Amino acid sequence: MILTVTLNTALDITYRVGALRPHTSHRVSEVTERAGGKGLNVARVLAGLGHEVTVTGFAGGATGREVRERLTAVPGVIDALVPVTGPTRRTVAVVDDRTGDTTQLNEPGPTVSPAEWSAFQEAYDTLLASASAVALCGSLPPGVPVGAYAGLVRSARAAGVPVLLDTSGEALRRGVAARPDVLKPNAGELAELTGSHEPSRATQDARRRGARAVVASLGEGGLLAVTPEGRWRAAPPARLRGNPTGAGDAVVAGLLSGLIEGLAWPDRLARATALGAASVVAPVAGEFDRGTYEELRDRVAVTGEATAA
Amino acid sequence: MILTVTLNTALDITYRVGALRPHTSHRVSEVTERAGGKGLNVARVLAGLGHEVTVTGFAGGATGREVRERLTAVPGVIDALVPVTGPTRRTVAVVDDRTGDTTQLNEPGPTVSPAEWSAFQEAYDTLLASASAVALCGSLPPGVPVGAYAGLVRSARAAGVPVLLDTSGEALRRGVAARPDVLKPNAGELAELTGSHEPSRATQDARRRGARAVVASLGEGGLLAVTPEGRWRAAPPARLRGNPTGAGDAVVAGLLSGLIEGLAWPDRLARATALGAASVVAPVAGEFDRGTYEELRDRVAVTGEATAA
Repeated sequence: MILTVTLNTALDITYRVGALRPHTSHRVSEVTERAGGKGLNVARVLAGLGHEVTVTGFAGGATGREVRERLTAVPGVIDALVPVTGPTRRTVAVVDDRTGDTTQLNEPGPTVSPAEWSAFQEAYDTLLASASAVALCGSLPPGVPVGAYAGLVRSARAAGVPVLLDTSGEALRRGVAARPDVLKPNAGELAELTGSHEPSRATQDARRRGARAVVASLGEGGLLAVTPEGRWRAAPPARLRGNPTGAGDAVVAGLLSGLIEGLAWPDRLARATALGAASVVAPVAGEFDRGTYEELRDRVAVTGEATAA
Repeated sequence: MILTVTLNTALDITYRVGALRPHTSHRVSEVTERAGGKGLNVARVLAGLGHEVTVTGFAGGATGREVRERLTAVPGVIDALVPVTGPTRRTVAVVDDRTGDTTQLNEPGPTVSPAEWSAFQEAYDTLLASASAVALCGSLPPGVPVGAYAGLVRSARAAGVPVLLDTSGEALRRGVAARPDVLKPNAGELAELTGSHEPSRATQDARRRGARAVVASLGEGGLLAVTPEGRWRAAPPARLRGNPTGAGDAVVAGLLSGLIEGLAWPDRLARATALGAASVVAPVAGEFDRGTYEELRDRVAVTGEATAA
């Protein structure tokens, strides 16, 4: 199975309001809820592609129970979340019906105790034994050491399991130094890590910091990959309108799926690009439009050159 | 015991953010949660005054479980909420640290089925048998007939239990016609009911519509009472700064408490006014500052005249 790690899972709540006006009272016309956090989105896309996926990380409190109840409804995803005393965070997205714009409110998440962090590490090591690949995704909840991902990358490498890292800030800086197989930053994370806003230079710099391969997701600019086998750019044939939240998670799912199927990099990148675009068309993060995916898969332009063997 | 009815209970969530900017993403710095809904606030104040209180209404889903868990932590309040399939609503108050202003997002609440509404009415009739007074508080969740409060007022009167009504809109219009013992509108509800923005005229009009007594809460204008025993105005000695949310619920608690203790109207109004002011000073709805209450109780100015017997 593929393992995805979401240390800071979330109950994602979306509110529709007529128009958001600060310092007034609003009647919410529609409420939707889902199990959220980047690794959970990745898992849903992988399950949609037919892979067996196990999710781990933390879940606690009433919101954690809701997240777990919602996960059991997703076929192909196995829940191996580790209990934590503090409540799983909520994220609230307020969609303004008039403009379509979204205002986001993100709770910080539960404070994880040292004992809970140790319990997670044990569970993770056990799960690695049956994993074909692992994705480490998203922010760290309070209490988890900032070097957490570095340790989890090292454990995966020691177990011989390919590991992909998708996080930001100091957790990314520490994590990349532990030499993950794939790093998947977006443009902002890449610039923060390297200090460079020039994607080509920044991607190479990120690789020098320890990642075996770096695949940067550049929004409308598509994907830029720098790997030991070569450098490529991949872009969808046309810009698609929709909700870009979760597009990066669909890209991660495509990269992992291609990796365990042994696809060559250009094919992995085409799959990841098509999935990212097909997730923009789907209404919620963690889903993708299958028709769009199948149509785009063969039409993604992948350019670049392989390194001479 | 005193019975309070909250058909649309809520999990009240408060978020602190640095500054609320629409269409951007915010990290919430502090999350607080409480069991909410007007009747639950009334119950907490009554319990704080030493009364035995039972709360009923609906609770459902994960949010309903949270509301009930939080209620068990309040000494003196007995939980007689009736289960409902749909989830209890959340309300989210976003407090802007820079300005102190609050932006409110209110979910509509669960859709109550006809069978659930019947189950509630049965439970209510049973509870009335041991109630010394009942307060009917707040909005109706979807599915509950708009004439609901009228029926609940009639049941209370048939059982010989004094009944206070505190609601708004069409539920108020229908409810007052069923002749509650006390109606407690605020200025906006009173104007909506009667079409008059002149409090003295509107309060008399509301009484003519069926209420035995009307006590209007006019914010800084204090209370205006029109009763069979006379007309009074009650006002605190000074304006207090703080959070006015829940002040009306503290007033309701004061009126009910005075009613079952057999206090004369001027004393009831003094108590209710002091409680309203003492709740403004307390940080959250459903609490009051005991020192402020005890200090103000004897200093509230009650003016008016009793009707000659």
